[in-house]
Amino acid sequence: MEKVKVMLWGFGAMGSGMAKMLLNKKGVEIVGVCNRSKNGKSIFEIMNIERGDHPDVLINSDIEEVMNTNPDIALVATDSYTEKTFSKLKLLMENKINVISTAEEMAYPSAQNPELAEKLDAIAKENNVSVLGTGINPGLIMDLLVVCLTGAMTDVEHIEAERVNSLSPFGAVVMEEQGVGIKVDEFEKGVKEGTLAGHVGFKESIHMIGDAIGWPVEKFEQQMKPIVTSVDRKAPHGFAKAGDVAGVNMTGQGYVDGEVKIDMKHPQQIEPEMEGTNTGDYIRIKGTPEINMAINPEVEGGLGTIAMCVNMIPHVINAHSGLKTMLDLPVPRAIMGDMRKLIRK
Amino acid sequence: MEKVKVMLWGFGAMGSGMAKMLLNKKGVEIVGVCNRSKNGKSIFEIMNIERGDHPDVLINSDIEEVMNTNPDIALVATDSYTEKTFSKLKLLMENKINVISTAEEMAYPSAQNPELAEKLDAIAKENNVSVLGTGINPGLIMDLLVVCLTGAMTDVEHIEAERVNSLSPFGAVVMEEQGVGIKVDEFEKGVKEGTLAGHVGFKESIHMIGDAIGWPVEKFEQQMKPIVTSVDRKAPHGFAKAGDVAGVNMTGQGYVDGEVKIDMKHPQQIEPEMEGTNTGDYIRIKGTPEINMAINPEVEGGLGTIAMCVNMIPHVINAHSGLKTMLDLPVPRAIMGDMRKLIRK
Repeated sequence: MEKVKVMLWGFGAMGSGMAKMLLNKKGVEIVGVCNRSKNGKSIFEIMNIERGDHPDVLINSDIEEVMNTNPDIALVATDSYTEKTFSKLKLLMENKINVISTAEEMAYPSAQNPELAEKLDAIAKENNVSVLGTGINPGLIMDLLVVCLTGAMTDVEHIEAERVNSLSPFGAVVMEEQGVGIKVDEFEKGVKEGTLAGHVGFKESIHMIGDAIGWPVEKFEQQMKPIVTSVDRKAPHGFAKAGDVAGVNMTGQGYVDGEVKIDMKHPQQIEPEMEGTNTGDYIRIKGTPEINMAINPEVEGGLGTIAMCVNMIPHVINAHSGLKTMLDLPVPRAIMGDMRKLIRK
Repeated sequence: MEKVKVMLWGFGAMGSGMAKMLLNKKGVEIVGVCNRSKNGKSIFEIMNIERGDHPDVLINSDIEEVMNTNPDIALVATDSYTEKTFSKLKLLMENKINVISTAEEMAYPSAQNPELAEKLDAIAKENNVSVLGTGINPGLIMDLLVVCLTGAMTDVEHIEAERVNSLSPFGAVVMEEQGVGIKVDEFEKGVKEGTLAGHVGFKESIHMIGDAIGWPVEKFEQQMKPIVTSVDRKAPHGFAKAGDVAGVNMTGQGYVDGEVKIDMKHPQQIEPEMEGTNTGDYIRIKGTPEINMAINPEVEGGLGTIAMCVNMIPHVINAHSGLKTMLDLPVPRAIMGDMRKLIRK
């Protein structure tokens, strides 16, 4: 049986991380990589790893040529928003390629873009392929894991999901998006003008949970506040002087029957330990029985997103055609054996 | 659209708990209950709850009559072992009824009884229905939840799942099965003669995890030790004098490539707090990234099993025909809305 053939679109931290993971797995091969800026270079050279027995893969800026390698699935790690990534997903599916997207909004695209979600579903069905958005969050920690735990409950009254994570492992782009190192007034200006990204995904997570358990979410709100440090904090790619912004505290609420029933808290900052903050993922569900979960430290975001996307490959290939969410597919799982054994014919 | 029609087989703590939960849900009705000893009595009378707008349901000892109520699905809460429950599941499926079983071994029947598992799958397919075994554990805490968390990992090296729970809420039958209150030498004799049940499910959980992530489990072992109390412990339905047995400490191991890679610990006892034991569910996974999860206190076993069985009803009705495990179906979730909306036609 032939190996599972994977193509990558995007070769930044996520795309190259997925490539590295795939190279360590059995029964799967990377057949092509599309990236604008690294055209012609070997992925092994860029990642600075030994090629070993793997065939070489040269980055190609021409997506048509990459699609001609006849991949079973494409991993697309280029955007955060459904609107920006839509044309890429469409093109891939029209070429009969299944798709997994890292775009946060794609984890539950009907939350922000119901029309685009419907279009994606129709395109997928016309071409007999599936498309899924996933990642660590949205995708698992503040939504699917919450949903899974409610499975042990006879009744749910209130859900709180909190993710306290460190931005220290991330690069310059993330520092900029999250406002690390800027002054408080610059931060406020960035929030007002919409230039600070913060965490993308609360609306997706809240609607995913609401739809899963049968709570129609009638209103969604979110807030973005600076985490102002009282000490100088230094991370590999970021620095925040005392009095400046060390990160962003995002909060979000989903209203059901006139009250906040789904509550999200997600403070992200560099070097949280310097002011006594311990990182972790927390899920607290009121109802019967109550559930109080903690993961300490938090599941690492970068590795977690890479793993989720690669680990969902067999589920997406096996799925009936259409737009899928994590709610539709079997639970994610690590792949320690041969990936071919997981593909149903 | 008609309500989802559910029948119950068995009306002990689990069966009656499911009935109570179902009566609080929208879009579902109990059409029949089979139980040998309570023939002719109203389930409302036995549960001592107001009937309200619900039609009355009389317990019937004749399974043929109960099956004639035309149920979409049967919840079977009568046994722990696949062999003992097999003929019941077969009869239901031959009458075109989907089935959810609480039997611990049914959570992953191929672990102990591969032939019976194959037969169940064939019978289900012949009759175009599905059969699932589930519960809190096996079914979620020490297996499905572990599998789900590995989804965020690029590589898994070692898995430890620990469930430290209290037996205090349980009744006389559980006290006896777990050896609560007996002398240490009686306990040892019970282990030797196989009369003490202890926890049923390690083999199922270990094989479920192994198969999910691609670790072929080549050997399984388990041990059963008494938890000897140094103080008198009193629970509603059990009593252990100082020096006697307050519960059972079960441990189990799954071997992969010659070493223990899946490690299970499950001490169960009455009044654990009296000797400083805090209850909880713990999952510790070595690999990349490492995951260290805790749920404190543990998810309550009785309610958890009731919830898992009821909450999986739509997934089982919607599934393709055959024997299903929690690995095959979408993640469990609470049902706070109308159950009919979750049924695909």
